[in-house]
Amino acid sequence: MTNDYTVQGFKAAAVVAGLKKGDALDVALIVSDREAAAAGVFTTNKVKAAPVILSERHVENGKARAIIANAGNANACTGDPGLNDARRTAELVGRGLGISPEDVLVASTGVIGEQLDMRLIAGAIPGLTKTLALDAVPLAAQAIMTTDSFPKISSFEGRAGGHAYRILGIAKGAGMIMPDMATMLCFILSDISINSDDLKRALLSSVETTFNCISVDGDTSTNDTVLAMANGLAGNGDLRGEDYDIFAEGLRNVMWDLSKMIVRDGEGATKLVSVEVKNTFSPSDALRAVRTVANSSLVKTALYGQDPNWGRIMAALGRAEIEMREDRVDIWIDDVQIVAKGLGRGAEAEKLAAEIMTRNEFSLTVDLNEGGYHDRMLTCDLTHEYVTINADYRT
Amino acid sequence: MTNDYTVQGFKAAAVVAGLKKGDALDVALIVSDREAAAAGVFTTNKVKAAPVILSERHVENGKARAIIANAGNANACTGDPGLNDARRTAELVGRGLGISPEDVLVASTGVIGEQLDMRLIAGAIPGLTKTLALDAVPLAAQAIMTTDSFPKISSFEGRAGGHAYRILGIAKGAGMIMPDMATMLCFILSDISINSDDLKRALLSSVETTFNCISVDGDTSTNDTVLAMANGLAGNGDLRGEDYDIFAEGLRNVMWDLSKMIVRDGEGATKLVSVEVKNTFSPSDALRAVRTVANSSLVKTALYGQDPNWGRIMAALGRAEIEMREDRVDIWIDDVQIVAKGLGRGAEAEKLAAEIMTRNEFSLTVDLNEGGYHDRMLTCDLTHEYVTINADYRT
Repeated sequence: MTNDYTVQGFKAAAVVAGLKKGDALDVALIVSDREAAAAGVFTTNKVKAAPVILSERHVENGKARAIIANAGNANACTGDPGLNDARRTAELVGRGLGISPEDVLVASTGVIGEQLDMRLIAGAIPGLTKTLALDAVPLAAQAIMTTDSFPKISSFEGRAGGHAYRILGIAKGAGMIMPDMATMLCFILSDISINSDDLKRALLSSVETTFNCISVDGDTSTNDTVLAMANGLAGNGDLRGEDYDIFAEGLRNVMWDLSKMIVRDGEGATKLVSVEVKNTFSPSDALRAVRTVANSSLVKTALYGQDPNWGRIMAALGRAEIEMREDRVDIWIDDVQIVAKGLGRGAEAEKLAAEIMTRNEFSLTVDLNEGGYHDRMLTCDLTHEYVTINADYRT
Repeated sequence: MTNDYTVQGFKAAAVVAGLKKGDALDVALIVSDREAAAAGVFTTNKVKAAPVILSERHVENGKARAIIANAGNANACTGDPGLNDARRTAELVGRGLGISPEDVLVASTGVIGEQLDMRLIAGAIPGLTKTLALDAVPLAAQAIMTTDSFPKISSFEGRAGGHAYRILGIAKGAGMIMPDMATMLCFILSDISINSDDLKRALLSSVETTFNCISVDGDTSTNDTVLAMANGLAGNGDLRGEDYDIFAEGLRNVMWDLSKMIVRDGEGATKLVSVEVKNTFSPSDALRAVRTVANSSLVKTALYGQDPNWGRIMAALGRAEIEMREDRVDIWIDDVQIVAKGLGRGAEAEKLAAEIMTRNEFSLTVDLNEGGYHDRMLTCDLTHEYVTINADYRT
């Protein structure tokens, strides 16, 4: 981890285009000095935003030069006009930078169902290309925020074949966070030399254990996009064996770090809770159980209320369609066991657990004692502020 | 519908036993003067409360004489001691009434995971048996309330074989409402003459289109119980053909009425919204689609915000794992179409829709234009008050 948020060969810029209310940065551009290996992971939602459709195509050949991203308008549910706008955005950036539009990746986040104001986008591009700077990635992180309360940025430094390299990631999250990705954008930049197949492999496996393991409200989005670019300037040559593993682990660390920031900044969230379900009958039982508990509104309001109301956890497990026997279930808040063999361990234990629950971060562990599988998910509490944010979002 | 909430041959009573905080009625007894045909439908949650386990057994023979129900403690996740308490409750009621304990059905609702205070239950029974009265069913409706803000009661009058009969239903609902029944108790009393197989058939089919079609927060419970008793005092003889159909439809009406009351009284709810998804590729697509939309936290906060934010509806449909094409989707709020072929119909339409959404009741209709199936569900909005109620429930 470092506070120097630069990666050699990558420049960024952000401007106020007028897509967000107020005078906030809302369009960002990230450019690699030279062709970069590129990979992407996109939403599994059947309703895909125009920039998702376009970027999926543009990243297919495994290379890219630039990412343009805007907040304030998701360019989703906008039909053919929306797709033309995404295409036109890539063209304008390509022209501004003197590169092929196919090497431009586009991402949007914000309100669904309104056409993008292309005059604002077109008007923003000259300012972006003119102010590109090595140290401006944090500004890009700021520009892609929607209901986020802080910009999300994380980095990793590694060595491969004797050469130092860096991985820098930025993300936006907040609401609509849930397995299979969430409304989140994440851009990963690295100067490592890696082929695009390996980059994609590392990216996919990292998504699996990071962004796909967090949940804010059970809703997934039309715009989820993770893009990675690696420009090879570190000069490490082929990336093999242990060096690949270190890179993949570094990438995972950056994405895990960003995942935690997204949940901690979940809309209205006051608590970051790691939910683990252990010793399930099957891997799919583990996944179903952990998702059901982590997404239960009643469990999430109890987390907010700092109440070790384990009956709600039992009720969630009971409807998760898993193999379970009530009299085998053990439950812990951090290291305080509140349920043993399906029965409450009493007021003393609950008092200790309630004390732990006053913290910002703690874990909730369920042991089903049925088999040998487990799964884990990061979640947050459901608060008054979540309702306020989402009832008032467009008004 | 009538305001005379009596059924011949059924008496009820309710007392303050001290299970709820404050001086509230919390234990109710309902007794049939003579043996009644009986049927029950119970939670599908794998974690079943003790009274559910007991009542499932006691109703198996198709007959019963009494129902005892308490609020304040669910007697769920209480292991063998809990089951003994439920059994003991039936015994005490049996002794008090001079009937077999097997003819006593038991239901509980309230906090999960705490042992029932049997001294309070035992102390309540003499008062209950002493004050049984024909017109006290509304008091029983009051006694079973937890976070409900009003008692729920509905009735139907019909004729069979020239004989008038009545169906009277009471219910409690509020939170944890979701398909496969919810934390709800519902007791149906009728003086019709019907055999227990037919009663069960009518009850099951009514549950399917009433209590299984409502949703407050996506959580199901350990205690869901619907019990029906019919004592035959109407003297209609065998119930056949059209007479059965009228009874079944009357039963459905009573249960639908109670369902609507439960959603309207959903924890913190301010709006009752009927969600329908039409013209889906398959019946299971219709069910999945309507459940995903009706349970989406983002859709439900938009309902609260009176915001026709149809992008959230599209996003919910997109993750529902159904056959759909974005450019075929039409969406209405009541009769105002806000989406046509996947695109918004503009500010004018949204303004009209927003006006409708200021009402307490409206409908949200999605037409997928894929096939010939449809499904419907009643839901409510997600509000600040929901969070307040559920964060503070036990404290």
